[in-house]
Amino acid sequence: MSDKTLAELGESESLRRTIGRLTTSESVLIGPGDDAAVINLSENRFVVTTDSMIEDHDFKLNWSSGFDLGYKAVATNLADVAAMGAKPVALVVSLAVPKQTRISWLEAFADGLSQALTELAPTASVVGGDLASSEKVFISVTAHGDLEGRAPVLRSGAKVGDLLAVGGTLGKAAAGLALLTEGGSAAEAFDDLVSFQLRPRPPIELGVLAANNGATAMLDISDSLVKDASRIAEQSKVCLSINSSDLLGFQAVLEQAAQRLNQPALDWVLFGGEDHGLLATFPSLELVPKGFKVIGKVIANKDHFVELDDQAIDPRGWDSVTG
Amino acid sequence: MSDKTLAELGESESLRRTIGRLTTSESVLIGPGDDAAVINLSENRFVVTTDSMIEDHDFKLNWSSGFDLGYKAVATNLADVAAMGAKPVALVVSLAVPKQTRISWLEAFADGLSQALTELAPTASVVGGDLASSEKVFISVTAHGDLEGRAPVLRSGAKVGDLLAVGGTLGKAAAGLALLTEGGSAAEAFDDLVSFQLRPRPPIELGVLAANNGATAMLDISDSLVKDASRIAEQSKVCLSINSSDLLGFQAVLEQAAQRLNQPALDWVLFGGEDHGLLATFPSLELVPKGFKVIGKVIANKDHFVELDDQAIDPRGWDSVTG
Repeated sequence: MSDKTLAELGESESLRRTIGRLTTSESVLIGPGDDAAVINLSENRFVVTTDSMIEDHDFKLNWSSGFDLGYKAVATNLADVAAMGAKPVALVVSLAVPKQTRISWLEAFADGLSQALTELAPTASVVGGDLASSEKVFISVTAHGDLEGRAPVLRSGAKVGDLLAVGGTLGKAAAGLALLTEGGSAAEAFDDLVSFQLRPRPPIELGVLAANNGATAMLDISDSLVKDASRIAEQSKVCLSINSSDLLGFQAVLEQAAQRLNQPALDWVLFGGEDHGLLATFPSLELVPKGFKVIGKVIANKDHFVELDDQAIDPRGWDSVTG
Repeated sequence: MSDKTLAELGESESLRRTIGRLTTSESVLIGPGDDAAVINLSENRFVVTTDSMIEDHDFKLNWSSGFDLGYKAVATNLADVAAMGAKPVALVVSLAVPKQTRISWLEAFADGLSQALTELAPTASVVGGDLASSEKVFISVTAHGDLEGRAPVLRSGAKVGDLLAVGGTLGKAAAGLALLTEGGSAAEAFDDLVSFQLRPRPPIELGVLAANNGATAMLDISDSLVKDASRIAEQSKVCLSINSSDLLGFQAVLEQAAQRLNQPALDWVLFGGEDHGLLATFPSLELVPKGFKVIGKVIANKDHFVELDDQAIDPRGWDSVTG
């Protein structure tokens, strides 16, 4: 049955097959199948974020399986919810694929959605979606979080004297991208790094923990450590000072792959995106939760946003339009 | 300035230009610019729905302007929120366009979003989005509604003896599509019908009104009157009986265009989608709100879902995959 194509089954039946592989969590009052889903919160505020992934711009089908793409689409959006200090509760998924796509690919995509939710945010579920046909694969996910009475953690709250800390990995997804680009035995030799590019595993549970501990600012690192740090600095009207010695642990795990490709590991740590770790500022060391690593501090506004070992550093990174 | 392209300005500046044209409503606590937006509800439940539009599948760029597409993307999603009996509060918009797209097109798209909100749901606003580049234009909107303490109106609640009623127009968007397909002077002669295809105007305010009046089932007519009626019938385990005489008013306004194109106006009314009117069932005539027109009634389960003048009728209509 599963080698039928989307064109053969049509939208309704294809959706039924796909949605049938997903489970719902307790905050879902009405799931897929009506005009809209109904979500229950613990209080009357929610956070919402959206992000899309486009074939040949954000991914290649010969690198990423349907499972990988479902996983990644969920993971990246959950990271934005976590970065507000909210508990993920619900997602809707828009998917467009060529008509000749096999239903087994759609099923793998649904399994990827499901696996990411199970591993990263078991309190959340897919509550709706849209399936259409197009020449290229297009994935758009919107994710929702429950603030549970907490104030949202914005990018604008960092204060001079706060510590700067990272939750999750840095540079692994960029290393994975470099390995995939190189291809062949290099990608095979470091398949753990490749897997961070294809299926990033942001530390979703650290978002609520950081908020409860009084994080003053937070975002998820999607474009690069330096570029996303500059966003906190700009919105908080401060400068973020990073110590390269605090990045050595992130570099160390990339060193072998870096030597293999003859690329500097530090560049992946500083300028590589897509790990979707959390970057946050905390008023004191004792408030930094386990799982976060302090990498610098918040200093007064300067004519640059980020510095490394007291030297201004250019906020390079990914731009979803210009690449 | 506005003849610059997306590639020249990059994502951040292009987004700034576009978002700058939108206003926020009072339920938005945190708007665009952080990892996620924060929405305030009057109670702790919200509805969420998503729908996408893809170039050459759902629209053609030589028929629809950027303004038209922004307007339509909002209108179609608001209709789903209204069909649950919820008040629209917030939308997020994912947009992908070719890199050479002019910023003036993006600005027109934003103006279309804005105009639709002003005209159809002034309580709602765009709270976030995503801009990316792709070969074809891809638009995905997710819309959110506040139930304000009401129970959601589902597709599954229609009861034998209820009256079946339509709010909004039937067949106008389908007539518009036929006129655009014919092109030339026909499309010019009936530009009011063409405008319903390009910028549908669903009666959003009737959704809350129907819910408050005790509508037992409701959906928005996106694929066709008969196809969407069959969805209520299937989920409610009933049959919907439509009287052709009650459709004459809908046919009458299409008659001139139908004669011009030598097509039956009744087909547009029965099998044409995209007006996004509301189809609802009510327990009695006095509960049918002003703005709804009774077109039939709910009868007991049969081996077909919908009948016209006591004859079974095939639920033809639009399928977003197979067309």
